Amino acid sequence: MKGRDFPPLFIDLFTKTMGMDEQEFELFCSHFREMTLRKKDYYLKEGSITNAKAYVKKGCSRTFVIDENGKEHILFFAFEDWWLADFESYHSGNPGKQYVQALEDMELLVISKQDFAKMETEISKMRLWYEVKQRKMNIAMINRLSEVKSGTSEERYCKLLDKHPEIFQRVPLQYIASYLDIEPQSLSRLRNRITHK
Amino acid sequence: MKGRDFPPLFIDLFTKTMGMDEQEFELFCSHFREMTLRKKDYYLKEGSITNAKAYVKKGCSRTFVIDENGKEHILFFAFEDWWLADFESYHSGNPGKQYVQALEDMELLVISKQDFAKMETEISKMRLWYEVKQRKMNIAMINRLSEVKSGTSEERYCKLLDKHPEIFQRVPLQYIASYLDIEPQSLSRLRNRITHK
Repeated sequence: MKGRDFPPLFIDLFTKTMGMDEQEFELFCSHFREMTLRKKDYYLKEGSITNAKAYVKKGCSRTFVIDENGKEHILFFAFEDWWLADFESYHSGNPGKQYVQALEDMELLVISKQDFAKMETEISKMRLWYEVKQRKMNIAMINRLSEVKSGTSEERYCKLLDKHPEIFQRVPLQYIASYLDIEPQSLSRLRNRITHK
Repeated sequence: MKGRDFPPLFIDLFTKTMGMDEQEFELFCSHFREMTLRKKDYYLKEGSITNAKAYVKKGCSRTFVIDENGKEHILFFAFEDWWLADFESYHSGNPGKQYVQALEDMELLVISKQDFAKMETEISKMRLWYEVKQRKMNIAMINRLSEVKSGTSEERYCKLLDKHPEIFQRVPLQYIASYLDIEPQSLSRLRNRITHK
């Protein structure tokens, strides 16, 4: 793929923020391929090995695990400008535990693990970017963990509505309930109560 | 401090696994200072800025946040061979949200953020180690998030007992309840029931 096929946020990140020159950026972009998913398609399933990173150009997805009782638990949603991977499987090479399912039709830009590693060696700024990325991911994970554990259902709901109102336009309510660890019926009641306040 | 003041696990990690030579290892160790905490002392409190990393030589601690309702939520415990820091505050330089409290008398080996950065520049193996460390931390966080959300109270309890039986010897039950997101009374009942099965 060419640099011009990528969204402005992607181009800005790697050229302006990370300072890649044109040649480096085009080399990086040349290793990506496009992939489309239809709504409800799976990008990953438990047991599959993650050997690529996927940049979300369009659409959104849910990442979830299934526990011993067959119950789904949503860990995160991904929207435009996020990256998708089962991080543990990607780095260990072992089968992963996560499911990633499209909640809308999606366009992904995918780079293989092998090509990504090659780019990290050839373009020094890549390694710096990935370090910063991992650091941010760690912080996001710790905050997500705090959030899951903190406050009442109502507080968790209000915080999400306040910080990410767009989620409620794009993601079915039962998935938001799972993300917030609230029973779907309780979330519906909560929404009705708050809306009619 | 000298290399010989460090525990075998620490020495092995940096000399054998990471391959530092004697000179590099002694240089690294020279930037640490010892710090002791008495049981119940705080290493960090909400609002403080983390400008060091602390290696746990002896003892254990709990890391927690306090929500809007004044309720404590334990995110992790740390035991020997762990590192303590409010990761977000360390990297952003902003006041942190976490509390770290000693659950036993503790011996910490502390290196300042400034010295750590200097070591990363001077000893290339440090950067590699920190990359691997961050990756492992990410995986641990995602797994912890899955665990918190998955299964029944009893399953979460049994899994912890199976994986980390030593925690039950060293950490008061009310803290384990908070870590597992179980009401303390329920955890006591659960333990009685399982013990008398």
